[in-house]
Amino acid sequence: MPDIQRIIDTIAEEIAGAPHRGRVADYIPALAKVDPMRFGIAVVAADGRVFTAGEADAAFSIQSISKVFTLTMALGKAGQALWKRVGREPSGSAFNSIVQLEQEHGIPRNPFINAGALVVSDVVLGGGDPRATIGEILRFVRYLADDDAIAIDMDVAGSEARTGFRNVALANYMKAFGNIERRVEDALNVYFNQCALAMSCRQLAMAGRFLAHDGMHPGTGRRVVSALRARRINALMLTCGHYDGSGEFAFRVGIPGKSGVGGGILAIVPGEASIAVWSPGLNERGNSQLGSLALERLSDATGWSVFTARGG
Amino acid sequence: MPDIQRIIDTIAEEIAGAPHRGRVADYIPALAKVDPMRFGIAVVAADGRVFTAGEADAAFSIQSISKVFTLTMALGKAGQALWKRVGREPSGSAFNSIVQLEQEHGIPRNPFINAGALVVSDVVLGGGDPRATIGEILRFVRYLADDDAIAIDMDVAGSEARTGFRNVALANYMKAFGNIERRVEDALNVYFNQCALAMSCRQLAMAGRFLAHDGMHPGTGRRVVSALRARRINALMLTCGHYDGSGEFAFRVGIPGKSGVGGGILAIVPGEASIAVWSPGLNERGNSQLGSLALERLSDATGWSVFTARGG
Amino acid sequence: MPDIQRIIDTIAEEIAGAPHRGRVADYIPALAKVDPMRFGIAVVAADGRVFTAGEADAAFSIQSISKVFTLTMALGKAGQALWKRVGREPSGSAFNSIVQLEQEHGIPRNPFINAGALVVSDVVLGGGDPRATIGEILRFVRYLADDDAIAIDMDVAGSEARTGFRNVALANYMKAFGNIERRVEDALNVYFNQCALAMSCRQLAMAGRFLAHDGMHPGTGRRVVSALRARRINALMLTCGHYDGSGEFAFRVGIPGKSGVGGGILAIVPGEASIAVWSPGLNERGNSQLGSLALERLSDATGWSVFTARGG
Amino acid sequence: MPDIQRIIDTIAEEIAGAPHRGRVADYIPALAKVDPMRFGIAVVAADGRVFTAGEADAAFSIQSISKVFTLTMALGKAGQALWKRVGREPSGSAFNSIVQLEQEHGIPRNPFINAGALVVSDVVLGGGDPRATIGEILRFVRYLADDDAIAIDMDVAGSEARTGFRNVALANYMKAFGNIERRVEDALNVYFNQCALAMSCRQLAMAGRFLAHDGMHPGTGRRVVSALRARRINALMLTCGHYDGSGEFAFRVGIPGKSGVGGGILAIVPGEASIAVWSPGLNERGNSQLGSLALERLSDATGWSVFTARGG
Repeated sequence: MPDIQRIIDTIAEEIAGAPHRGRVADYIPALAKVDPMRFGIAVVAADGRVFTAGEADAAFSIQSISKVFTLTMALGKAGQALWKRVGREPSGSAFNSIVQLEQEHGIPRNPFINAGALVVSDVVLGGGDPRATIGEILRFVRYLADDDAIAIDMDVAGSEARTGFRNVALANYMKAFGNIERRVEDALNVYFNQCALAMSCRQLAMAGRFLAHDGMHPGTGRRVVSALRARRINALMLTCGHYDGSGEFAFRVGIPGKSGVGGGILAIVPGEASIAVWSPGLNERGNSQLGSLALERLSDATGWSVFTARGG
Repeated sequence: MPDIQRIIDTIAEEIAGAPHRGRVADYIPALAKVDPMRFGIAVVAADGRVFTAGEADAAFSIQSISKVFTLTMALGKAGQALWKRVGREPSGSAFNSIVQLEQEHGIPRNPFINAGALVVSDVVLGGGDPRATIGEILRFVRYLADDDAIAIDMDVAGSEARTGFRNVALANYMKAFGNIERRVEDALNVYFNQCALAMSCRQLAMAGRFLAHDGMHPGTGRRVVSALRARRINALMLTCGHYDGSGEFAFRVGIPGKSGVGGGILAIVPGEASIAVWSPGLNERGNSQLGSLALERLSDATGWSVFTARGG
Repeated sequence: MPDIQRIIDTIAEEIAGAPHRGRVADYIPALAKVDPMRFGIAVVAADGRVFTAGEADAAFSIQSISKVFTLTMALGKAGQALWKRVGREPSGSAFNSIVQLEQEHGIPRNPFINAGALVVSDVVLGGGDPRATIGEILRFVRYLADDDAIAIDMDVAGSEARTGFRNVALANYMKAFGNIERRVEDALNVYFNQCALAMSCRQLAMAGRFLAHDGMHPGTGRRVVSALRARRINALMLTCGHYDGSGEFAFRVGIPGKSGVGGGILAIVPGEASIAVWSPGLNERGNSQLGSLALERLSDATGWSVFTARGG
Repeated sequence: MPDIQRIIDTIAEEIAGAPHRGRVADYIPALAKVDPMRFGIAVVAADGRVFTAGEADAAFSIQSISKVFTLTMALGKAGQALWKRVGREPSGSAFNSIVQLEQEHGIPRNPFINAGALVVSDVVLGGGDPRATIGEILRFVRYLADDDAIAIDMDVAGSEARTGFRNVALANYMKAFGNIERRVEDALNVYFNQCALAMSCRQLAMAGRFLAHDGMHPGTGRRVVSALRARRINALMLTCGHYDGSGEFAFRVGIPGKSGVGGGILAIVPGEASIAVWSPGLNERGNSQLGSLALERLSDATGWSVFTARGG
């Protein structure tokens, strides 16, 4: 086993001095205020040890990373039927694109672009009340992370609700095709709140463990999802987790990951580790610029890549 | 280690009785004649043992699978500079789509769609003569497979040259943007000939070994490409190897693969095996329908997936 | 001068027996109930005489024809500055398409597709109150038609507000680009109400007179718009008035026209006549099938076309 | 009748001093050499009088204006059947766009974009020999213009054949859909030669007379096309004659026109005049910048617009 602590310390040092830090998301006022110099990383190894560097305990807005957790919940509720309402292909377009929706009659390309995640939220909502559903999501994430301190940042949720016109457009557009079943405002309410989950790198890496353990919660020894489902969620993260930068991330980093515009990335090395990294500056595809670099360095140093002969 | 022979025998049996066999490619007359009932599979394990079932020694037209070999050659010639002329992202559109080219000014999305492979062929051509270049490609594939019997099917090459109007369109279109540097007809000549390589499953699986061995040729012990480059080629195969069906293949099969309209698929399990499968009927995305199914069964039975905790 | 009455009587007869009547719009419940056998036509000649056939006094939902009137108002309020927020080109796509909006950063191609008309409604709204604005539109149309009986069908307006998800999507999408200045719900409120104007063919043809008279209201002798502006509105009707069927309408009928999904068409022969026709069945582009045919017959019989040597 | 001579003299003066002259087409070397200061205009009135200003007798490359003449020929050969192979709608995209072709299965949107004109050339070619067909086109244009001095500029034709990769792409792309019936190189040969027709403004305006005379050749008194066909060609010129600048031209100038990248525009005022104008600098849509301005001034000064109450 490589010396994780030494590796991530070195990475944190490099990141601290990196000249090009990307641009902090400015379309949500609550995100625009974050200092681009901040950085954190947490690695939960297969044996349960946790390694951290930088501000690994600082909470940030996980934004689209939440889509991994709601997808897991939606698959539990709808099973394979979910795939009638959302595809499993990389979209080849931006996270908030509406073009593909028109051409494909309201069926989003995958559950990790905004449109797809809105359908997923609509499924998680089911026949229920938005407020109860938001509570359910929160409880699920707390359970996964073994941490009841995780909360939703109400400022961020409100900010998104007031300014998220593109998401309102996407949801209404799919409603016109019948692919949002509940009230549009309820699905949006769930979505804006899940995106506003505030978590630290440590909490996020803890919450991702089940995907590195073939679906098992290593803390409780209970199954969160089947091994097949865990494998499939990982596959979706690899092909679709970074929007139209997914190919680049697979090329450079080579492990399943899901990014959020808050600057976080959750990355899974099956059998090895669950990793969370955070740096608020984004590249032009809307993915954390230095977060991606940190994971590339980590992959290079540890040999963690799904595309190499592991243990070789 | 699972009992590969028993597993692939069972798969061959299921495939023989499969009711839905897809549609044989009909846009090239020489391919349209192939019997959709045919099937073959070959698995070269990490230890060098070869397992086969069905018509594993029947030669078929490898078509787009050749793009893996020319990409490897082009990276050897141009290195990272190749990526100025071709992207690394899933395209989200069909293998022969021209739409994305117009929107992105003649830069193809990735080296595995036709447009991207034409740029790669242009790079492999370099300043050279097409005939010599075709010879070079042939020698490279024979070396990888340790088999000098591999040949180009001249009927298929001629058939493509006479009827491949979409590829002619793609090459001229990129020439207009300056992204084909040599004469259009020379780049097309190389491309049509590489696609006409006739190989058996056994030969193809042998040729793919270096990608399962972190870039090493296991026969000669010599490096074909660096470990990093092998890892990156595998990543591209996973995200882009099945055109707009790449996400689905990753979801269901979970290993890097590259398909061809001749019905073949080359699939790589890093550290474990190089696999070739052949069934001529295609699904609506242009990928072998039963070939995909065979690989899904193989993955399920062996646990071979890059998205699981291997050896766990 | 041709014998208009005889001509439109003959047309009404042919229409009554026409076998293919198109499909009544079904996306708004209030429109879906209309009998596809209904038909009306009214021609107001340059000298003020009115010719009618069929149900020329039956009120129908003018829907998108209202865009001609609000465009006229918006040009009065914003002048040439309007064209910074909306283009003047045929869109080449469907009336409710959102694709072009994404590619062109929230600027709709022309004021007669839904997105463009929403911007126009936002301009008409100005700093005002939606209810007052709706009243203002109603008064303007009544003035143009010299008829205070014109009203808004509240059932239709309510129906659109409840089910018009695509329009809600379009408005929110443009809001994200800053191209809806007022509250989204206010702009939509104005839009849904203007579309719900109920008018007869006679009223509509009367309201269109100013466009046949180079901008002059022939009843009052007062100018509604300048001659240049009237000419330009006519040009926009010809190039953009039938969505992606505009070229076909120009080819077959050859006069400026604006259609609505209620089955109405307002058509202008500059210097000759203002015409309104109504038949609820739509062709696949969303334009009145028999309404278009009636106008083609009228053009053929009278020689009214902007593309011939008039009076020749 | 307005004093045409005085009007065009004034226009020529304004044009001579215009600061923004657009950009001379540079994609064909033979066109790139033309001096952007040059300007000519010719007006053939309905009574046969010819008014000219500037270099009205200087020959320039008519380029896409030739599409009007080949369309006229193709309609004579194929009649309405032509419209199975090419549409009649504005494309909403650039003159050489290939995107729409993919989405609409090889059927170009209209006969005035390059793809559509290539189909038209293929129809004109019929079963014939390209050289004979080119001769036929030349004779037809000479007949229309009453001028045997009109010739094809062989330099330009050769230049296009060597560098017209996008047109080669378009033709091959349609061939793949079966919408080029003859050999691709033959259709391209005809197309490149028709585009290389060299004509003066005087010759061009003369050649366009039949469209201002409802299809009649005013010199011979013989019909070139029926009145209906003339009207329809005019309609197509208005809706599609300036590519994705057609709406703007209709809005500003208000008469049917067809532009070419050589800087020429042929414009038709039915019953009034056939006009040709030439200024080599192009706007960003590929239409003559000052040619459009000259026609706008002419329309304003004479009242010539199809959208006004003529003679009213």
